[in-house]
Amino acid sequence: MLSFDPSPARISTGLANEEKENPLSEQHPLWSIMHPRTIAWVGASNNPMKMGTIQLTNLLNGDYPGQVYPIHPTEETVLGLKAYPNASALPEVPDMAFIVVPTDVAVEILDDLGGRGVKRAVIVTGGFKEMGEEGRRREAELLSVAERHGMRFLGPNCIGIMHSRQALNTTMFPRFVMPGPVGLVSQSGSYVTQVQLYLQRRGIHISQAISVGNEASIDVVDCMEYLARDDDTRAIILYLESLRRPRRFFEVAREVTRKKPVAALYVGGTGAGARAGGTHTGAMAGDDRLYEALFRQSGVLRVNTIGDLYAVGYALACQPPLRGNRIGIVSHSGGPVTSMADACERQGLEVPVFSATLQESLQPLLPATASAANPVDLTFGFGQSEMMTAIPRRILESGEVDGVLIHGIMGSSYLESWVGSVEEKLGVSRAQIEEAQAKDVEELSSIPKHTGMPVICSSFMDRDQDNCTRLLQDHGIPVLDTPEQAAEVMACLGRSASLRKP
Amino acid sequence: MLSFDPSPARISTGLANEEKENPLSEQHPLWSIMHPRTIAWVGASNNPMKMGTIQLTNLLNGDYPGQVYPIHPTEETVLGLKAYPNASALPEVPDMAFIVVPTDVAVEILDDLGGRGVKRAVIVTGGFKEMGEEGRRREAELLSVAERHGMRFLGPNCIGIMHSRQALNTTMFPRFVMPGPVGLVSQSGSYVTQVQLYLQRRGIHISQAISVGNEASIDVVDCMEYLARDDDTRAIILYLESLRRPRRFFEVAREVTRKKPVAALYVGGTGAGARAGGTHTGAMAGDDRLYEALFRQSGVLRVNTIGDLYAVGYALACQPPLRGNRIGIVSHSGGPVTSMADACERQGLEVPVFSATLQESLQPLLPATASAANPVDLTFGFGQSEMMTAIPRRILESGEVDGVLIHGIMGSSYLESWVGSVEEKLGVSRAQIEEAQAKDVEELSSIPKHTGMPVICSSFMDRDQDNCTRLLQDHGIPVLDTPEQAAEVMACLGRSASLRKP
Repeated sequence: MLSFDPSPARISTGLANEEKENPLSEQHPLWSIMHPRTIAWVGASNNPMKMGTIQLTNLLNGDYPGQVYPIHPTEETVLGLKAYPNASALPEVPDMAFIVVPTDVAVEILDDLGGRGVKRAVIVTGGFKEMGEEGRRREAELLSVAERHGMRFLGPNCIGIMHSRQALNTTMFPRFVMPGPVGLVSQSGSYVTQVQLYLQRRGIHISQAISVGNEASIDVVDCMEYLARDDDTRAIILYLESLRRPRRFFEVAREVTRKKPVAALYVGGTGAGARAGGTHTGAMAGDDRLYEALFRQSGVLRVNTIGDLYAVGYALACQPPLRGNRIGIVSHSGGPVTSMADACERQGLEVPVFSATLQESLQPLLPATASAANPVDLTFGFGQSEMMTAIPRRILESGEVDGVLIHGIMGSSYLESWVGSVEEKLGVSRAQIEEAQAKDVEELSSIPKHTGMPVICSSFMDRDQDNCTRLLQDHGIPVLDTPEQAAEVMACLGRSASLRKP
Repeated sequence: MLSFDPSPARISTGLANEEKENPLSEQHPLWSIMHPRTIAWVGASNNPMKMGTIQLTNLLNGDYPGQVYPIHPTEETVLGLKAYPNASALPEVPDMAFIVVPTDVAVEILDDLGGRGVKRAVIVTGGFKEMGEEGRRREAELLSVAERHGMRFLGPNCIGIMHSRQALNTTMFPRFVMPGPVGLVSQSGSYVTQVQLYLQRRGIHISQAISVGNEASIDVVDCMEYLARDDDTRAIILYLESLRRPRRFFEVAREVTRKKPVAALYVGGTGAGARAGGTHTGAMAGDDRLYEALFRQSGVLRVNTIGDLYAVGYALACQPPLRGNRIGIVSHSGGPVTSMADACERQGLEVPVFSATLQESLQPLLPATASAANPVDLTFGFGQSEMMTAIPRRILESGEVDGVLIHGIMGSSYLESWVGSVEEKLGVSRAQIEEAQAKDVEELSSIPKHTGMPVICSSFMDRDQDNCTRLLQDHGIPVLDTPEQAAEVMACLGRSASLRKP
């Protein structure tokens, strides 16, 4: 089963021009942008209140191992790095340029970089297509300069990129999302940067994140193509306000979804959403039903909220597909199992009554007051070990269900209230209990691998509050905030699997 | 505007028989259960692994100021308190008894307590109606003993109660939910106890929480009646798997919703939900459409998930009703405003384009690249003060909308990344910035009060990660996890207001 290192970014492989394990990937226009060995940085200064300065500060604080060449018209050094007055003064041709300059000099800067031989760029500068006719003209000019120099770029009006394993964070937020299996492409910068604490709190691990902005040169389709070739990325999630190339999206998505699952949130389908999106990135949104059909026919799972996009993406990346609609439910809590069962049925899933044989095989694992019929309600008890090991294993191995939902695995959050007494009276230390819990988590995380069927959990205690939640998430078992969300994510695993059928 | 003290329970008023400010309330069967001056505790021992012991430990650790009399057949003391062999040995008649004993002695214990003159009890013991025919018989016996002694009780098969201002927490979880304006009644114990960390993390403040279990003597309708008379409770939320007395529910709810809003989650309407609920509390669920009509006609807002129940309950308790469907949206983040606008429209809300006059009055508050049309997108900038003060005020005072949604107010979470530089370069300390933010939060929280229109926020940073989120929530401004959730909660304020129209 997947297991992710939640420690800071591992910087080991794949700096551009250093290792060439996947030649196909390296030919992609995004390769050097996401794996730069050297970056020319235009727009940082020694003024800490400037956006470009904040972004460069974050990059440097994140221990980026490559070389950064600040370009600044007057400063000798920028944030302690030797600065260069223009691109021709650079000691070498950088793999890419990062541009955060005022709108009216952006074209000139790009031309200067192109003249020095720079082939890739990220343009954060705004004031283009999203700003009406004059902006559209400026954006066309930007693109024509780039084409003259054979350049490809992200943006303009984007927020940058994040690639934890490359220690590459060019956003305004100082933290890294946790390295993991979800590739994120977004027409909103906020959904790459501002969500970092949100994703961390929910144990959602990201391989690479790309903010595409106005998509003048590189668009969502290019990003999807690029991430399809990235071995770390097991599922791709897209935040969309519009598509520039719907036909090409269809062709590429149909291919990509044969290899890995793709989920999309599309918000341009309502009048209000389309108007807001137009102001945001200058795009024209399309009819909701057309997009709905486009997604369905290309095997892309459509979700309804940004929270669902991240949660479903993580489950798609970590768990096997749900190949039927029969769900087993396990918990010690009557309310949550009832909510889960109700939510399953509303989502088109079944919660079948277990056969007498299966119920009998579960009975020895349960207290006398428990129900083994499905939902399996263990009722109140201290032993949570069975919930993570024998019970889900027997249920999945029975062949009577296609996936299992578990609510309420709790470790340290509950332990805190009575471990003092336990140590005193029973001679079991907290460390011993937590060690046993870690083994149980490992066993649970091996079950989807062995059975080929998904397991999704929910807990009212998040990863900062409970060691089991954290361990489960880091072992690729999604733990959602509520029982209904777990049922919904499970249903999405089923829908995605149906859509991806050839 | 409301402001809640997030510090541990304030123990000031209303111990039973001490202060009688509201004689009507005190006549209610739940009064002594929720305000006991003295409790007989049956089922705790000195074994820390027993449920009754854990629950009593929590009560005592929570600084409950009343008197507890443990009843134990053999122990001289229980958890350091003098124990009594039976009820007749008690030095006085306690206001209520808390019972966590094996099923087969529950009737006998209740009889003993009744003989001593005890009139109120909470029976945690399970093994009654939820356990089939034999259990039903036992439950009938329990009820007949209680009736003989003129007793009323919560349960059996419940988890206890919580009343923060009384320092009364009889559950297995050691923490208190934060004292506040939401009254919670639940047919699931988990939704009273296990959710404590969940509610704390989301800034949802609870006045009193009641787990009703099998409702043999006191049911949801009684609880709703009781909370309707509690001045601290500004909204009531119900988790329901079934209703014992639907007609009485209708009569009472119709009255209660004239005074304060009520929201309900009903999960018995699907086959799977009904079956799970039957195992849980032995109730028979009813047709979903009948319940739907019952709620609508009695003015009760129905919600779909447990997360919505808490979030909507808190908004109903803190914010004015939404009296129209026109919403103003404010943020510095293009993606989130687009999601918000899209979600509003899907929820039946409008995001009208502002008049030229209103746009002109907002323009001086915005950077040049911003849009004032609605959504108001400030684009990236440091100054968040306007988002909390002048902008929402002007929008609401314009008369062009009925409520305002704001996404992305950030304080300490963002400050952390650049405050070092700010202090150094601009001579503004973190303390000064946070003081200014606190003033802005106070101003924002005064706007709904002055205008009579609701303000709901969302932020990707929760109250532990950001001081502004915490301050807003503690001042009665709901801050949801995502833009779509904020829009959904706003829509619920509108639906509740429509349902409650006479």
